[in-house]
Amino acid sequence: MLVVMQEGATEAEIQAIIDRLVSLGFDVHRSTGVVHTVLGGVGARDFEPAEFEVLPGVKSAHRIVSPYKLASRNFRPGGTVVKIGNIEIGGEAVVVMAGPCSVENKDQINRAAEIVAKAGAKVIRGGAFKPRTSPYSFQGLGEEGLQLLREAADKNGLLVISEVMEISQIPLLGAYSDIYQVGARNMQNYNLIRELGKQRKPVLLKRGIAATIEELLLSAEYVMSGGNYDVILCERGIRTFETYTRNTMDISAIPVVKKLSHLPIVADPSHGVGRRDKVAAMARASVAAGTDGLLIEVHHDPDHALSDGAQSLFPEQFRDLMDQLRKIAAVVGRSI
Amino acid sequence: MLVVMQEGATEAEIQAIIDRLVSLGFDVHRSTGVVHTVLGGVGARDFEPAEFEVLPGVKSAHRIVSPYKLASRNFRPGGTVVKIGNIEIGGEAVVVMAGPCSVENKDQINRAAEIVAKAGAKVIRGGAFKPRTSPYSFQGLGEEGLQLLREAADKNGLLVISEVMEISQIPLLGAYSDIYQVGARNMQNYNLIRELGKQRKPVLLKRGIAATIEELLLSAEYVMSGGNYDVILCERGIRTFETYTRNTMDISAIPVVKKLSHLPIVADPSHGVGRRDKVAAMARASVAAGTDGLLIEVHHDPDHALSDGAQSLFPEQFRDLMDQLRKIAAVVGRSI
Amino acid sequence: MLVVMQEGATEAEIQAIIDRLVSLGFDVHRSTGVVHTVLGGVGARDFEPAEFEVLPGVKSAHRIVSPYKLASRNFRPGGTVVKIGNIEIGGEAVVVMAGPCSVENKDQINRAAEIVAKAGAKVIRGGAFKPRTSPYSFQGLGEEGLQLLREAADKNGLLVISEVMEISQIPLLGAYSDIYQVGARNMQNYNLIRELGKQRKPVLLKRGIAATIEELLLSAEYVMSGGNYDVILCERGIRTFETYTRNTMDISAIPVVKKLSHLPIVADPSHGVGRRDKVAAMARASVAAGTDGLLIEVHHDPDHALSDGAQSLFPEQFRDLMDQLRKIAAVVGRSI
Amino acid sequence: MLVVMQEGATEAEIQAIIDRLVSLGFDVHRSTGVVHTVLGGVGARDFEPAEFEVLPGVKSAHRIVSPYKLASRNFRPGGTVVKIGNIEIGGEAVVVMAGPCSVENKDQINRAAEIVAKAGAKVIRGGAFKPRTSPYSFQGLGEEGLQLLREAADKNGLLVISEVMEISQIPLLGAYSDIYQVGARNMQNYNLIRELGKQRKPVLLKRGIAATIEELLLSAEYVMSGGNYDVILCERGIRTFETYTRNTMDISAIPVVKKLSHLPIVADPSHGVGRRDKVAAMARASVAAGTDGLLIEVHHDPDHALSDGAQSLFPEQFRDLMDQLRKIAAVVGRSI
Repeated sequence: MLVVMQEGATEAEIQAIIDRLVSLGFDVHRSTGVVHTVLGGVGARDFEPAEFEVLPGVKSAHRIVSPYKLASRNFRPGGTVVKIGNIEIGGEAVVVMAGPCSVENKDQINRAAEIVAKAGAKVIRGGAFKPRTSPYSFQGLGEEGLQLLREAADKNGLLVISEVMEISQIPLLGAYSDIYQVGARNMQNYNLIRELGKQRKPVLLKRGIAATIEELLLSAEYVMSGGNYDVILCERGIRTFETYTRNTMDISAIPVVKKLSHLPIVADPSHGVGRRDKVAAMARASVAAGTDGLLIEVHHDPDHALSDGAQSLFPEQFRDLMDQLRKIAAVVGRSI
Repeated sequence: MLVVMQEGATEAEIQAIIDRLVSLGFDVHRSTGVVHTVLGGVGARDFEPAEFEVLPGVKSAHRIVSPYKLASRNFRPGGTVVKIGNIEIGGEAVVVMAGPCSVENKDQINRAAEIVAKAGAKVIRGGAFKPRTSPYSFQGLGEEGLQLLREAADKNGLLVISEVMEISQIPLLGAYSDIYQVGARNMQNYNLIRELGKQRKPVLLKRGIAATIEELLLSAEYVMSGGNYDVILCERGIRTFETYTRNTMDISAIPVVKKLSHLPIVADPSHGVGRRDKVAAMARASVAAGTDGLLIEVHHDPDHALSDGAQSLFPEQFRDLMDQLRKIAAVVGRSI
Repeated sequence: MLVVMQEGATEAEIQAIIDRLVSLGFDVHRSTGVVHTVLGGVGARDFEPAEFEVLPGVKSAHRIVSPYKLASRNFRPGGTVVKIGNIEIGGEAVVVMAGPCSVENKDQINRAAEIVAKAGAKVIRGGAFKPRTSPYSFQGLGEEGLQLLREAADKNGLLVISEVMEISQIPLLGAYSDIYQVGARNMQNYNLIRELGKQRKPVLLKRGIAATIEELLLSAEYVMSGGNYDVILCERGIRTFETYTRNTMDISAIPVVKKLSHLPIVADPSHGVGRRDKVAAMARASVAAGTDGLLIEVHHDPDHALSDGAQSLFPEQFRDLMDQLRKIAAVVGRSI
Repeated sequence: MLVVMQEGATEAEIQAIIDRLVSLGFDVHRSTGVVHTVLGGVGARDFEPAEFEVLPGVKSAHRIVSPYKLASRNFRPGGTVVKIGNIEIGGEAVVVMAGPCSVENKDQINRAAEIVAKAGAKVIRGGAFKPRTSPYSFQGLGEEGLQLLREAADKNGLLVISEVMEISQIPLLGAYSDIYQVGARNMQNYNLIRELGKQRKPVLLKRGIAATIEELLLSAEYVMSGGNYDVILCERGIRTFETYTRNTMDISAIPVVKKLSHLPIVADPSHGVGRRDKVAAMARASVAAGTDGLLIEVHHDPDHALSDGAQSLFPEQFRDLMDQLRKIAAVVGRSI
């Protein structure tokens, strides 16, 4: 860590900072410049820059070491490939996970599974527990939904991803789903993600709508520090001042995460923009930018979906999109 | 609800929207303008504007009725006063809740309780379960912390507020704390807040760092729809592009909430700015803007606090601040 | 326009709003619902929703007609193709405009022109007047820079785009540049853009870092209302809470603008992310999302550039990128 | 400046950075830690962290010296008091500048002047040149408006503040106004502010809606570097995701600017919230937080104002507010 003293900081102020650093277990290195004195603290302990910046005579403090370790690219320079059944996320193939927002009934999920499997998706998505902004909205079918989802997947040779919202749901999700999905609103639900760190199934962690990339990696660190290294990150749009789209999808997070971390990153253009007619463009953009996978909402009859119909693709839209994605994947050295 | 058709929408497109509205249970009222046809849908059901905005021929759709009911000012035009022991939040008095970020040990919490009680606070705050961005930071003392907090409060005639992070902690918090505090990261942890709706103790709900005021009120609606009407809202800063302060405290949320809702609203300037030297200014601003209460971090020795030391006030700073706050409260017709 | 009255609004309040609407020249249509009365105002005049929302008894007010007309897709449903010399922006081809951030000297700009022309760019970019956050940074070569830029372009069969910062520079830019570029900081410099509306050369208008898409289209409207219909819009990143990248490039603005407006839209990934190693990914994403063109910073020796070296591509990076872009363009039915 | 090398950076990479720093004129100080090597560069030159962060082996780069000098608190630790006629901005008194959004006609501005003067304002505000988002909105009366404003001010013993939008308007504003107001949209119109640096009248510089405090101070630096040290800063709300208010007023900017700079800072609650019924609360909050002055929109008949009526106070609201502000000012050791 580095502490930059103010111009004109007194010797007593400088000494107080040195003493404090030493008491925290840092070795201190002092460098006296023309304008500013800089103190470098070497040690294993993390620190909070603000704690120093409020002390007398301090101008600014800087973290040198990343606050995350296991999630850092350095930890596995070659990158992580998450293997689930016969698929690999983070490898050469771009993995498409598609399906309806919610499981609504047997017919709906079976039709969805058939549609997405035929078009080339490897995983079916579908919520059984739904986080809804309003308490009066449809909240999901619960275990029944998970059963229907599993059956539909098995019938069509697909894997399953579904959202876990709460610690008590972990066993249920563990029984039916191949990947635990953590939604954007729960990215910093630390009790939940710590518990998922104790499981031995992959966790897909969506970026919170106001989470920095560093915070996303710190949440991954929570899961990994429990011993579960199979973490898949997901960009799904952040909240900005622009209101035309539901969120602003931060496509640049894809190459940024690739540089900072060894973990795979996928993109969710359906939530990223929230409008069906923009989903295809953003899915193509994500593949062009290097995503390891996609989460796409597809419904056999979006106009009558119980949730998120506005952002679900029609079956034929999804098929056409998959054709385009295959060609773009090839341009960036990948396959679908 | 209102659906505005595009300029040049065909009669078939208009009819399709009318049919859809009727099938959803709305009575439809059509108004044909020079440029646009507007369809008004009357009915009890809520709807998602985006679901209509993706349909052919639709320009925009607007919600007329607020998506929250119980949290709306209309529900209790006179305003809600939450009574806890001998204090009232939402009444004439501005209630100050102060104390350390975390309970660290017996001596620390006792000293904090004495300091804040003497200066005029009515409630002691202190975390036993701490949401921390990094898994390697201090995570709180758990039940032991709650015991120490309760004892310190009782000895000094204070009430207790402490954070609940997870459903399984509800009974424990219920046993030791007078108010359940829900942190910003859990404002949309729907399982947790729905469960708190079944309790019969007040809930203080902090605004998420990226939550609109409407979303805050919808989360209050979750609690209230379970029958627990004693909800206290809390502004504690939102995330913006400005990085000098930890968050940007949205002081205007105070008068806005007062207009939209009957629920009391308090302010947390410590988290709002994250730097001790700005806390007093923001606490004064909050009272001047009409807050019903304040949450302020105070530590007997902030330089050695285990968490959030940088934003905790020194005892003498807190005493001086309370003197100023009393005078400002009087200007706006309140007392402390 | 629509004014929704509050639940319980009195007849007198409703009548006052009707009178006000009539006095402003609107025909008023009243619709009485179970909960809310809605007043529809029909007329040519624009209005500000907030002006009604502060009146007694009003719940909300909604604009029905877009505040922009000439920039709206309705105005030219087929889309606008801006023709400049032998190129077309908004047609089948994706036009690449590339070159250094600033013109630094004759050798530098000549080398840049040769590099970008050979790789397939049609327009050379290069600033002679530079908006710099600090008054102590390099501010550009002025007219000398424009001369060098023009010569380098002509020698390599390129067109020229360069930034105009101020009304007095318009004649100079008009003499040397084929397109007037208006930077993000000047998108709402109304005196400047109104003056550009009187010119008869194309204007490329960059989106301000905090501008909504609607505001971007309103600024285009300023130019068009002066009679200059050759406006090219440009997405170059917006400011969000994420600090890892210089800005957050809003790729979804590309399909959104295509829907709302007939004007061509291009993307500037160099400013969008601010880091060389992310530019290629974002350029590919832009083409995949349907951009009509690209602005890319390329320098023969970025490590010694006088400005924006960190986001300028090396020559070989640009050539490799152009190869990828050509293939992606083909997937979306375009050429480069 | 400090450059932190990545874990595992090679000796060649480190040496390349050292060479580069030396070639830029820095003295370099190397500090080898357990994990990271840190290079400190000492020298007068400013640098752009991103330029180093894209180089091989570099983890991060940090500016130590603030990029602004003249605007920094260090430059005048005692603070700047701007004297204009018989008033002082930045001294003990909180200066209130009030009046309509736009000058509309003689009667209107005279009535406004009388109202605000009687209530205790010292300066009248009123726009003659108006930056409007739409080209179809009222754009101001121009010179005639300035004449009317000056006459109304003189008759009532007030000073004048009015907005300058463009270099060519500087002489006109100089002839009629006592303070040049630069609007939020022009905060980074560098040609304009550089030109104002050559004038010898105070400049009030409004913070751009997406400008960081550092950028605001850099724009002040532009004015000051021309020799005009009488700069008054103004917080008027920033753009965030919250849409209920027009902007989010960043009250914390007041104490932050006080710490970083010696320049006075005033607050504009009218633009900060955009709704009349929130203006009083935010004006009180600003004084409680330590503002040096206020800009408040007041109109004798806001319902018929040609611009910004929704945020203009009625005369009696302004008088009541002034009474409250006087009392709050006294609590923080100021007067009005």
